[in-house]
Amino acid sequence: MKFICFQENLKQGLNVIEKIVGKNPSLPVLNNVLIITQKDSIKLCSTDLEIGISCWIAGKVEKEGTLCVPVKILSSYINSLPNKKIEINSRENKLNLKCENYKASIVGFNSEDFPIIPQIKEKEFISLNSFKLCQGFSKVIGAVASSDIKPEISGVFVKLKKDFIKLVSTDSFRLAEKTIFFEKPLSFEKSVIIPAKTVMEVIRIFGETEQSKSEIDLYLSSNQILFSKNTLPKIHLISRLIEGEYPGYEEIIPKDFLTKVLLERQEFLQHIKIAGLFTTRTNDIKIKVNPAEKSMEFLSSNSDTGENKSEISAQIEGEKIEIIFNCKYLMDGLMNIDDEQVILELNGDEKPGVLKPYKKGEYVYIIMPIKPT
Amino acid sequence: MKFICFQENLKQGLNVIEKIVGKNPSLPVLNNVLIITQKDSIKLCSTDLEIGISCWIAGKVEKEGTLCVPVKILSSYINSLPNKKIEINSRENKLNLKCENYKASIVGFNSEDFPIIPQIKEKEFISLNSFKLCQGFSKVIGAVASSDIKPEISGVFVKLKKDFIKLVSTDSFRLAEKTIFFEKPLSFEKSVIIPAKTVMEVIRIFGETEQSKSEIDLYLSSNQILFSKNTLPKIHLISRLIEGEYPGYEEIIPKDFLTKVLLERQEFLQHIKIAGLFTTRTNDIKIKVNPAEKSMEFLSSNSDTGENKSEISAQIEGEKIEIIFNCKYLMDGLMNIDDEQVILELNGDEKPGVLKPYKKGEYVYIIMPIKPT
Repeated sequence: MKFICFQENLKQGLNVIEKIVGKNPSLPVLNNVLIITQKDSIKLCSTDLEIGISCWIAGKVEKEGTLCVPVKILSSYINSLPNKKIEINSRENKLNLKCENYKASIVGFNSEDFPIIPQIKEKEFISLNSFKLCQGFSKVIGAVASSDIKPEISGVFVKLKKDFIKLVSTDSFRLAEKTIFFEKPLSFEKSVIIPAKTVMEVIRIFGETEQSKSEIDLYLSSNQILFSKNTLPKIHLISRLIEGEYPGYEEIIPKDFLTKVLLERQEFLQHIKIAGLFTTRTNDIKIKVNPAEKSMEFLSSNSDTGENKSEISAQIEGEKIEIIFNCKYLMDGLMNIDDEQVILELNGDEKPGVLKPYKKGEYVYIIMPIKPT
Repeated sequence: MKFICFQENLKQGLNVIEKIVGKNPSLPVLNNVLIITQKDSIKLCSTDLEIGISCWIAGKVEKEGTLCVPVKILSSYINSLPNKKIEINSRENKLNLKCENYKASIVGFNSEDFPIIPQIKEKEFISLNSFKLCQGFSKVIGAVASSDIKPEISGVFVKLKKDFIKLVSTDSFRLAEKTIFFEKPLSFEKSVIIPAKTVMEVIRIFGETEQSKSEIDLYLSSNQILFSKNTLPKIHLISRLIEGEYPGYEEIIPKDFLTKVLLERQEFLQHIKIAGLFTTRTNDIKIKVNPAEKSMEFLSSNSDTGENKSEISAQIEGEKIEIIFNCKYLMDGLMNIDDEQVILELNGDEKPGVLKPYKKGEYVYIIMPIKPT
């Protein structure tokens, strides 16, 4: 194997594939990046057996070949080099690198032991704006169940319909649902559950910080999903799917309300944060909605540390109510709403509350109250 | 106790005193800040029994008194409030706070259990620019011995002479010495050893990020030191000193050299960093100085990961030499030099090397070589 590429391109490529590396200590070969050079393509691959990532980088191939190299040392070395041309070749399982006055040789491994990253056969796919998709994922990932006791809720439920895609998560204490509408209707409908870890990798790799125009193609088989980006650097991320049926969550979302409050998001968040300082282990804070006084009160107390009481004025419709919520769950929901104003809808102190943005109805966050003791 | 102050002032004061709090789990009372109001002064105190910090904040005292309050919850609460006036009073060991629409009550403790922070009787003191002093401390703190096996080198040696102050540290593998000259000569001479933890607190509290004109007064007794700042917020930090005699380090500093190299600091650092990726546990890298070729080579290798070789051109005087250093120690020294160019002086492969800035001779870093195996 022999190729030449710029430091920046190799650094970027390694950054894409390296985060899933080495999380599986039972198979040391997974600590490696598999480098494959073919004609004009330089491909970097990594896998943790659940997710496989391939990234193609720009460069000039002088000799075809493959080699496995420990990603940690390679990445540290490349990150330290200046952004100049690097000449790379392999000889007897060693990767030799030369960049200006720097020369190194890294001990590699035979590529035959590296697991084969599966392919997907389906030809049907949907294209989505990668920023919108990743932003959507980031708004629901926090509510995924963290334990594997119920595997079907340990991932993000993705529901593809003709005109929209719904991203849903729940840990049975709260539920988040984000809807993204398509510009062109889809020719097929499908539902899958994507493991939380895969979703986090997708956000990390494809979630550009600024609104970008790059597209991401999703290919779905019965047990796998492929995220494919064809603009440079070209990236494929393939993952297993979670088997099982997602709970029929739609009936949980309240259609109506007895009390509706319109609040400034930042102010609401601030009061919950402060109330959260005086809670017990269950993080419970009491909210009193008082339509007559157009006010909302936040109360919390802990016999060891002290107590707190604060108040904000709010626009309220409907009935007076006292309800207890887990303040951490409330904060999570509020932080995922982009709008400056939020709506809180309640149906008595034992029914779930609904948080949503004031302007656009494309995000809903449901939260179960805590029963008063 | 009753007083009114701005959130920002209380926040700042708590920030000064809180870092040493709660590091001593055997005495729960040390988790508290002691608040003392007297006439027109609001004083916050903390101690870990080795260091005592007092900070006076601006505000209006309405009733004199004292109370101990757990600093963690108080500080979190104050940090979350808006920068408005806070009304504070104590009643039955509770601290009641009111700021706009926020009200809280924090469970406190009787102030009688709080340890008395000692006073210093000495009237003699020296005044130093606080930025210069803290910058000096930060350049030597890294080389202090981290274990307590030899207590006398577990702190920074401070040598007060008529015209200058020397700050010295060593862990017997390397030694750092920073000299600060006085504008006015001192009327007394003295040497003390300040515990590393105290020095770190002094840097944190008094080390303004930008060059500032504020002065810091040092009062010295035989077993204690007081750092006193009288500009707002007024701060006193008192600490025990380390007993014992500091090793006679001055004879270790080489007076001459066989080889002298002038290097660009950033480039030198970069090459050491890269060589450091391929070292074994002892972090050793080999440096070859070649006067004939006006070059310096860096070599490192590790049979498990690989090897590295890099080269820079340098101005060299004197003899050819091959020497082995711990790359982490070299990096530490280089990072503490502000000058863009550095001088490395060597006296054969078994004698200590000297790193110093090219321009000003007010900093010296001595590093012991590793014997070749």
